[in-house]
Amino acid sequence: MALEVFHKDETLQMRRKLIGQSCRLFFSRDPVKIVRARGQYLYDENGMQYLDCISNVQHVGHCHPSLTQAAAAQMDLLNSNTRFLHDNIVLYADRLAATLPKKLCVFYFVNSGSEANDLALRLARQYTRHQDVIVLDHAYHGHLTSLIDISPYKFRKLGGQKEWVHVAPLPDTYHGIYREDHPDPGQAYADTMKSLIDEAHKKGRKISSFFAESLPSVGGQIIFPTGYCKRVAEYVREAGGIYVADEIQTGFGRVGSHFWAFQLQGEDFCPDIVTMGKPIGNGHPIACVATTEEIATAFTANGVEYFNTFGGNPVSCAIGLAVLDVIEKEDLRGNAVRVGGHLKQLLLQLQTKHPLIGDVRGVGLFIGMELVKDRASRKPATEEAAHLVRRLKEERIVMSTDGPWDSVIKFKPPMCFSIEDAERVCTCIDQILRELEHTHQKEDCGS
Amino acid sequence: MALEVFHKDETLQMRRKLIGQSCRLFFSRDPVKIVRARGQYLYDENGMQYLDCISNVQHVGHCHPSLTQAAAAQMDLLNSNTRFLHDNIVLYADRLAATLPKKLCVFYFVNSGSEANDLALRLARQYTRHQDVIVLDHAYHGHLTSLIDISPYKFRKLGGQKEWVHVAPLPDTYHGIYREDHPDPGQAYADTMKSLIDEAHKKGRKISSFFAESLPSVGGQIIFPTGYCKRVAEYVREAGGIYVADEIQTGFGRVGSHFWAFQLQGEDFCPDIVTMGKPIGNGHPIACVATTEEIATAFTANGVEYFNTFGGNPVSCAIGLAVLDVIEKEDLRGNAVRVGGHLKQLLLQLQTKHPLIGDVRGVGLFIGMELVKDRASRKPATEEAAHLVRRLKEERIVMSTDGPWDSVIKFKPPMCFSIEDAERVCTCIDQILRELEHTHQKEDCGS
Repeated sequence: MALEVFHKDETLQMRRKLIGQSCRLFFSRDPVKIVRARGQYLYDENGMQYLDCISNVQHVGHCHPSLTQAAAAQMDLLNSNTRFLHDNIVLYADRLAATLPKKLCVFYFVNSGSEANDLALRLARQYTRHQDVIVLDHAYHGHLTSLIDISPYKFRKLGGQKEWVHVAPLPDTYHGIYREDHPDPGQAYADTMKSLIDEAHKKGRKISSFFAESLPSVGGQIIFPTGYCKRVAEYVREAGGIYVADEIQTGFGRVGSHFWAFQLQGEDFCPDIVTMGKPIGNGHPIACVATTEEIATAFTANGVEYFNTFGGNPVSCAIGLAVLDVIEKEDLRGNAVRVGGHLKQLLLQLQTKHPLIGDVRGVGLFIGMELVKDRASRKPATEEAAHLVRRLKEERIVMSTDGPWDSVIKFKPPMCFSIEDAERVCTCIDQILRELEHTHQKEDCGS
Repeated sequence: MALEVFHKDETLQMRRKLIGQSCRLFFSRDPVKIVRARGQYLYDENGMQYLDCISNVQHVGHCHPSLTQAAAAQMDLLNSNTRFLHDNIVLYADRLAATLPKKLCVFYFVNSGSEANDLALRLARQYTRHQDVIVLDHAYHGHLTSLIDISPYKFRKLGGQKEWVHVAPLPDTYHGIYREDHPDPGQAYADTMKSLIDEAHKKGRKISSFFAESLPSVGGQIIFPTGYCKRVAEYVREAGGIYVADEIQTGFGRVGSHFWAFQLQGEDFCPDIVTMGKPIGNGHPIACVATTEEIATAFTANGVEYFNTFGGNPVSCAIGLAVLDVIEKEDLRGNAVRVGGHLKQLLLQLQTKHPLIGDVRGVGLFIGMELVKDRASRKPATEEAAHLVRRLKEERIVMSTDGPWDSVIKFKPPMCFSIEDAERVCTCIDQILRELEHTHQKEDCGS
C-alpha cells in the first residue's frame, strides 16, 4: 500500500475543497501529514518521526499488531449484527463486567462516545421519568444535538442553555471557588450541587441525571477532590436522579491505579451508568454503555426495540477483546503508574524552576500542566501555552492544550509511553520555557 | 480462531443476562447463532447454510476478502483522526463526489447513519435558521434522541410528537389516500406537503427541512410516485427549508439503475443533503453526510469545530474505498438490475397464483411483497407474513417483514444475490403460500 497518493499541498487543497471546514486540523497554519504510526510514534510523509503525547484513542499504541490480527481474522469470518446470536458480544460484555462494580452488569454496544452518552440520556430519562440534566461547567459530552445541549463548552457558543439543563461549578481547586487551601473542597463543591438542585426544584424542575467525566478533560484535566462524587451521587439520587460517569476519555486504565477513573473516588462510590468510548477499540469505532439491571429493565419496559446497526458486531467486539488482552499482557496500567508518576515528578521539578508553570496535576497518564502569567493571580498564560505547543512541534513532539483558557498542556499519550519519552518531552519543555522566560525578561527590561 | 466458544444455550443465557433486553434477536423464540458468513450465505454453529435475503449492510457480500485486506493493510499502517492530513479521506470524498450531482460536493464523515442524520439536522437548522422538520408517516431516521423525535415509527410509541415536527402522508399508492389509479399521485401527494406547510406557517412555525428516505423502508418498501420529490423540494424550499435525502438504506447502487435512489426521480431533482450509512462500509461503522458548499459554509460560520473522534479515519476510508471498488469491479449494480428484475418477475408470477400476495413493488434489489387478507380491502395479512418468515427460516432462508403492519416481506439481500438464489426463494414462497392457502381453505370449509 502506497504511503502517499498526493503531494501534501494537494492533499491540503483537496481537503479544503471536499471536507467541511468545521472539521479542523491540528496546527492549522502548517498542518502535519501523517502516513504511518507505531506505538507512540507518528511518521510524516518524509519519514520524520513525531512523539505522540495526545492520542488517547490509540490507547495500547498505534497499529498494535494484535489488534490488526484480531480484526482481520474476525472480518474474514463474520461481521453481522446483534440480531443473530454470537459469542463475541457476550464474551466481551462479560470481560467488561469483570472490571466494574457488580451492580453495573448490563451492556449496550454502540459506535461512538457520543452515541453512548445519547443512549445514557435516554436510559436516565426513561428510568427516572424526569427530564432535567445537571452538568459541570465547561463540560463536553459529544457532538450530537442532545449532547451539545448538555455541554456548556459547546452550547455557550451555539444557541445557549436549555431550561432543562443546570450547570454546576467545576470542582477545580486551582481556579474554582474553593481551592487547595480549603479544608474539605469535596464537600464544599458537592454542596454547590445541593443548592443547584434546590433551586431547580423551586422552579418545578425534576432531575433525571448528573453527567460528569470522571476526570474533566476539556475542563482542563481536573482531578475531583476527595469525597466529591459520593456526596454528589447522594444528592442527585435524593432528587430522584442518577449518576452518569462519562469515562470516554478516562477509562481502560489510563489512571493506572484503577481501571476506571471513577474508582479513584473510593470503593463506596458507584455510578448508575458508565459510558465508554475513545480508547475502547484503539481507534476502531466502538463504544459502550454499562448500567444496572433496574435501569435496563425500565428501558426494556417501554416496549420499543433498541437496534444499533453496527453496535456490538463480532468485529468490533473482537477488537475490544484484543484491546483488553493487550492492556493486561503488556501491563499498561503498571506502565501508566510508573511513567505517569515519573512524568509528573519531572514536571513538578520544572515547576520549581519555571514561574510560568502554575500547576501540575493528574494521575497515571492523564496529566495537565497549567501555564499562568503569574502564580499569585493564576491568570492563564494562553499565548505562552500556544507557543509551547508550536515549539514542541518543531522538536517533533505532538502536544495540545485544553481548559477554558487553553492554558493547560495536556498529556494523554498512548499507554506504551516510556520513561525516555517522558524525559525527552520534559527536556524540551525546560528549554522552551527558558527561552520564553528569557524573552519575557528582555521585554520587561526593554519596557 | 474458534468458531464457537460457548454452546448456543449458554450464549443465549449470557446474552439475556449481560445485554440490554431492548436489543432484540431475530426469531426470538428460537434465535439463530451465526458463526461464519460468505457472500449471501450465513452458517450456523452446526455448519448449516442459510440464504441471507435481508443483510443490506453486508452490501458486497459477507466477508469480502478485498475489504478484509484493505482494512488490515491500513490498520497496520495508521488509524489516526482527521486533525492530521491524510490522503484516504480526500480520495474517498472525491470518489463519492463523482457519484453525486455536482452541487453535493462537501463531505462530513461519521460513524453511523444515526450520527449522519443528526448532523444533517444540525446543518439544516444552522443554514436555514429554522427549527421545524417535516417527515413522512411511519418514517425511521435513527436511534438518537434527536432522531426519535423525527421518526413517527418510534415517537408514536415513545412520548409523542414534538410541536416542531410535522408528519406528511406517506406517498404509498397501495394503501395511501391516492392510489395507483390516480392520474398524478406524485402531484397529489406533493400537494399534501404544501397544505402541511401552509398549516405550519399559520401556527407561526418555520420549516428547516424535509427528511425522507429516498425509498421508505420501515414504511413498507415504498417507491415514490413520479415527480413527487421534485415538487416537494420546491414547496419545502419556498418555505425556506431544505431537502434531506436519507439514503442510508437505499444508496450505493441498491436500486441498480442508479447509484442513489433519489436519482430515480430524474436528473432535475437534487437534494440539499444526502445522508449515507449501512452499506457504505459493508458492516464497518462508517457513515457520511454530503451537502452543498452554501450549507457547509453556513455551518462553518458558527465558528465552532465539528470533531468526530473516529469519523473519516484512514481505516474507515480505506474500507469505504474498497467497497466502491468492489461495486464497480463486480458490476453489482448490473447484478441488482438483472437479479432484482428477475426476482420481481417471479414474485409477480406468484401473485397471479396466490391471492395472499396483494402487491409486489420495488426496484433493483430493494423489493417488497405485501401480503393481504383479501385484495379488495387490502387488509394486511400480518400473521401470514410472520408465518411465511418462520417457515422460510425452516427452509434455511433468512427473511423479515416491514411496513406499518409488518405485512411486507422485504428483500434487501447482499448485492451478490444470484438468479439461482432468487429462484430458490420463490420456489419456497410458492410452496409455503400454497400450504397456507390450503389451510385457509380447510378452515373456511370447516367453519
